[in-house]
Amino acid sequence: MSDFNLALWQKICAERVRVSDFTSWLMLLLILTSSSISMSDEREMTLTIEEMKISVAPDLDYKVFAFNGQVPGPLIRVKEDDDVIVHVVNNTSMSHTVHWHGVLQTDSWRSDGVPGVTQKPIKPGEKYTYRFKADRIGSLWYHCHVAVNEHVGIRGMWGPLIVDPKEPLPIEKRVTKDAIMMLSTWESENADKFGQGATPYDIEDYFSVNGRSFPSTQPLRIETGDVVRIRFYGAGGAIHTMHSHGHDMLVTHKDGLPLPQPYHVDTVLIGPGERYDVIIEANQKEGRFIFHDHVDKHVTARGKHPGGPITVMEYANTPMDDWYVWKNIDYNPDFFFTESMTKGYGLFESTKFKGEPLTRKRRRRHYEE
Amino acid sequence: MSDFNLALWQKICAERVRVSDFTSWLMLLLILTSSSISMSDEREMTLTIEEMKISVAPDLDYKVFAFNGQVPGPLIRVKEDDDVIVHVVNNTSMSHTVHWHGVLQTDSWRSDGVPGVTQKPIKPGEKYTYRFKADRIGSLWYHCHVAVNEHVGIRGMWGPLIVDPKEPLPIEKRVTKDAIMMLSTWESENADKFGQGATPYDIEDYFSVNGRSFPSTQPLRIETGDVVRIRFYGAGGAIHTMHSHGHDMLVTHKDGLPLPQPYHVDTVLIGPGERYDVIIEANQKEGRFIFHDHVDKHVTARGKHPGGPITVMEYANTPMDDWYVWKNIDYNPDFFFTESMTKGYGLFESTKFKGEPLTRKRRRRHYEE
Amino acid sequence: MSDFNLALWQKICAERVRVSDFTSWLMLLLILTSSSISMSDEREMTLTIEEMKISVAPDLDYKVFAFNGQVPGPLIRVKEDDDVIVHVVNNTSMSHTVHWHGVLQTDSWRSDGVPGVTQKPIKPGEKYTYRFKADRIGSLWYHCHVAVNEHVGIRGMWGPLIVDPKEPLPIEKRVTKDAIMMLSTWESENADKFGQGATPYDIEDYFSVNGRSFPSTQPLRIETGDVVRIRFYGAGGAIHTMHSHGHDMLVTHKDGLPLPQPYHVDTVLIGPGERYDVIIEANQKEGRFIFHDHVDKHVTARGKHPGGPITVMEYANTPMDDWYVWKNIDYNPDFFFTESMTKGYGLFESTKFKGEPLTRKRRRRHYEE
Repeated sequence: MSDFNLALWQKICAERVRVSDFTSWLMLLLILTSSSISMSDEREMTLTIEEMKISVAPDLDYKVFAFNGQVPGPLIRVKEDDDVIVHVVNNTSMSHTVHWHGVLQTDSWRSDGVPGVTQKPIKPGEKYTYRFKADRIGSLWYHCHVAVNEHVGIRGMWGPLIVDPKEPLPIEKRVTKDAIMMLSTWESENADKFGQGATPYDIEDYFSVNGRSFPSTQPLRIETGDVVRIRFYGAGGAIHTMHSHGHDMLVTHKDGLPLPQPYHVDTVLIGPGERYDVIIEANQKEGRFIFHDHVDKHVTARGKHPGGPITVMEYANTPMDDWYVWKNIDYNPDFFFTESMTKGYGLFESTKFKGEPLTRKRRRRHYEE
Repeated sequence: MSDFNLALWQKICAERVRVSDFTSWLMLLLILTSSSISMSDEREMTLTIEEMKISVAPDLDYKVFAFNGQVPGPLIRVKEDDDVIVHVVNNTSMSHTVHWHGVLQTDSWRSDGVPGVTQKPIKPGEKYTYRFKADRIGSLWYHCHVAVNEHVGIRGMWGPLIVDPKEPLPIEKRVTKDAIMMLSTWESENADKFGQGATPYDIEDYFSVNGRSFPSTQPLRIETGDVVRIRFYGAGGAIHTMHSHGHDMLVTHKDGLPLPQPYHVDTVLIGPGERYDVIIEANQKEGRFIFHDHVDKHVTARGKHPGGPITVMEYANTPMDDWYVWKNIDYNPDFFFTESMTKGYGLFESTKFKGEPLTRKRRRRHYEE
Repeated sequence: MSDFNLALWQKICAERVRVSDFTSWLMLLLILTSSSISMSDEREMTLTIEEMKISVAPDLDYKVFAFNGQVPGPLIRVKEDDDVIVHVVNNTSMSHTVHWHGVLQTDSWRSDGVPGVTQKPIKPGEKYTYRFKADRIGSLWYHCHVAVNEHVGIRGMWGPLIVDPKEPLPIEKRVTKDAIMMLSTWESENADKFGQGATPYDIEDYFSVNGRSFPSTQPLRIETGDVVRIRFYGAGGAIHTMHSHGHDMLVTHKDGLPLPQPYHVDTVLIGPGERYDVIIEANQKEGRFIFHDHVDKHVTARGKHPGGPITVMEYANTPMDDWYVWKNIDYNPDFFFTESMTKGYGLFESTKFKGEPLTRKRRRRHYEE
C-alpha cells in the first residue's frame, strides 16, 4: 500500500463532479492496481553528431556540429522515471561528449558526460552509450561538454530534453500550445573555422532563438483562448531578456522545477544554462504582438538593426497589412517545436532545422572528380 | 451587484477600529454607488521628439532624440483604466514609433508602437496618435521601437509611465517619497553621430541613472522615517546591480506587478527592459549612504573612476564635512522625479532634464548667416 | 520579561524528544536568565593591506592589494549583534578604504568605508579603525571602495564576512559542510600594472572562484549524507551562472537574508555584489560531479578551454580513474573556507591563499645590493 497514489486519488475525487459511487470504486481499484505496475518505459535512441552548415540569417552560413544534422538538436521527450538509453555516434573531426543538463544521474554518474571527470572524450568516429533514469522532471537539455565555449557557445551543440512529470500541475494541464525557445549567439568572424573562436577576444554579432536570427526566425501563431507554455533556454553564453508585448507571462518553473510562488512579468532575464517556463494566456481578440530580446544590441545582425531573437505572436483572425514584415513568410509550424511537442515520447527530428552536410558533400565532390 | 467591490469593503471593515454602525452603512452605500460610476478618466497629451544635445557628464555632451526635449522623457502618470491618448510629433530627421512597455493594449494592438508589425514608422515631420486604456498597473515605460539598439540604447528615447492601481498594497500606502531610476549606457565614440553606433562592435564607456553619470547625478535627500519607493528601470542595454548602503531593500514589484512574496536584498540586478520596485525604510538617524551600481566598470566614465549611476542618500540632519564630494552641489529635487510624482495625473516635464536644441539652433544659425 | 526568548523556548520544546520535566524547567530558567545577559561579544582584529603577487593560474601571476597578504581576504566571522572593531593598516602604495557590504551601520555611518562620502581615503602608510555592530545577518563581505573598478574588479580586494544569526533556520542547523565561492575576473594585460586597467576598454580573459582559475582551483570533497551550504559571491564585475551537476540547489538566502520561499535550481545567476546561499544535499552514493560557471567564455583562460571557476564535487568512496584531471592534486581542504568555517568566531587566515610579497621583496633586494 505504500505505493498507493493518494494525491492522485484525492485529485480525482476533488475533480469528480457527478460520478456514481460505483465508478469511483472502480477508479480506486484501477489506481491500486496500476500503482504496483511499473509506469516507466525504456526509451532507446541514437544521436549522431554531424559537421553541417546551417543558415543562421540570410547573410550568415555557419559551420556547426549538429545533433542528427540539425540545430537545435532533435526534441527528446520522455516521462519521469523512464529508462533512457542514448547511443551517441561522433561523425565529426573533433572530440565531443553529451551532458544531460538537469538529469541527476542517480547511481549513473558515469553517464554525466564530462570529459576528464566522468568519461574520456568520444573521439572522431567513436560511439558511446549513455544510460540513465529520467530522475528529474521538467525543461532539461543536452549539450556537448568538450570545449564548451566553442561547441556550445557557437557550434549549435544543444537540444531540448523534456521530462514530463507524473503529476503535472493544474496550470500545466491547461496548456494548449507548447513552444521552446533556445537562445544563443554567433560570431560571424568564426563562422567558417572549426576549432576556433568563442573566446573573450571574439565578438558576438548575431543573436538567435532556435539558431536563427530575424528575419530567419518565425511567427508564433496562436488563437484566442490558447494557453501557451514557453520554455526559455539560455543555451549560449549571453544573457537575454525576453519581452512579450500585449501579454504578461506567469513564470511557473525555474530550471524545470515548479516555483513555490509563480509570479507575473513582462520581461524575463535568462542567463547561460538557465531555463524559465512561462505561461501566456492568449486573451486578445486579434493582433500581432512582437516578442523579442530586450538587450538592445541583440536585435542587430552584423551590426545592423533589426535581427536576433525576434518573433511575433500572430492571432489567427488578424487583418493583414501590406507593410507587415512577415506578410508572405514561408511558415514553419515546428520552429518552436510546437508540432514535435504533440507527438508523445521519443526523439523527434525537425526537417527545417537540418543543415547542409559538410563532410559528405566534400566526399561526394571528391568521388565526382 | 457583480461590480460590488467586496475586497475594498472587507478592507475598510478590517481597518476600521472604532466606527459607528451608522458610518459603516454609509460607507457601504458609497461603495455600492461608486461601483456603478466610471472611475476612469481620459488623459490626452502630446509627446514631441526633438533633436537635442544633453550633458551626460561634465566631459560628455551627447546628441539625443528627446521626448519633449528632455532625457529621460517626461513623467506620464495615469490611473488604472484611464483612457490615454498621446499625440506623437516627430520633429527629428529620422523615423520613430512609441511603444508603451507593459501596457497590454487590450483591443488596441495597433497602438503597440512596433514598426512593420502594428504600424508604419512615423517619418520625420509626421504625427501619430496612440489610444489605449491603462489596462495594466505599475512601473511601465515608453520608448522608441525603431532601431532600438541606437534610439533606446544610446539616444535617450525613454521615459517613465506610471499607472497607479485602483487598489494599492498596504506597503504602497505607506510611501512618503518616490524615486525613479532609469539605468542606461553611452558610447562616447558615437556621441555626435545620429544613425550610428550601438552595435556589438561599439564600446559603452559611460553609464548613467536618469541619463547622467556621476558627478552629474544628484543626491537623494531623505528624512528619518521616510518610506522611499524606488522604481529601477533597465532602460538601456546593460545589466546593472544597484546596491544600497546602510539599508536593505524590500523588492515588492517586478515589471510593475506585485510579487506574491516580497523579499529583502541589498543589491538588485536589473536587466534590459526589466523593472523592480523596492521599498527602503529610512530608519537611520543621520548619515550619508552611497547607492550605486555594483558592476565595477559601470562606475567609470571614459575609463576613469569615479563615474556612472551613483547617488548618495543624504539624511537631513547630517553634519557636513569639508571633503564631501557633493558639499556644494546645485541641488535638483526632481532628479529622481520625486517632485513630479507629487503632482497627480498627467504629463510632467522636468526642466533640468531638457537638452539644448540642435535643429532649431542650426536653423537659427542658418537664419543669422 | 519582554526579552524572554519565546521562539527559542518553543523550538526547544518542539525538538525535545525525551527530556524530563525537571530538565525542561531547568532550561526555561536558563533562557530566562540568559535573556537578561548580553549575548554580544566584542571582536577586535587587524586587517593589513599588502602589495603581493598571487598565482591565479599556472600561467598567470597577478599583482594584487591583498588583505593580510591573501586573496580572498581572511574569513571574518562574528555573531549577530557582536561589536566589531577592525584596525586597517594600508601598507601599499595607493589609497584604500574598507566597505562592509551588507552591514547596516546603524548609528555608525562613518564606518561605512566610502571615500569622499563617509571618510577620507586611507593613504599609503596610514591606519584607520572601523567600529560597528554586526546589525545584519548572513553572507556579507568586505571590500575596498576606492577605485573599485580596479581594486575590487582585478586586484583581489575582497573577503567574506559571515554574521551568524542568533536564530538560524532549521535548514541551517542541518548543514554539515560549509563552502564559500567568491567569483571574479582578471585581465592578463593588466596583471603587472598597479593603477591601470579594469575599464570598459580592457578585456577580462581569466575567470575565477576564490581567485583561482582551473586547474588551480580545487575539488569540493564530500560524503554521502552531507548537507553542503554554498555561499556564492559576485565579488567581481561579471555575472556568473554556477551549475551543479547531479544535484539541485535549494536557494535559501539572497544577500545573506532568508528568502520567504526557497526554491530549487540547477543553475544560479550571480551578479556583481550579489550573494546567494544554496543548500546541496549530497545524496549520491558515489561519483564526481563537475560544478562550474555556465557562461561559456568563463571556462577559458587566456582564450583557451578549459579554465575558470570550475570545481568537482568528489564523493569520498568514488573509484579513481587514470584519466581523471585531478587524480594527483595537492589537496587544499580550506580552498572553499571549509576548515576556517569550523573555527568559531574571529579572523581566520588561510595560508594557501597568501601571495608572494612585492614590497618587502623589493626592499629586501634593495638591502641585498
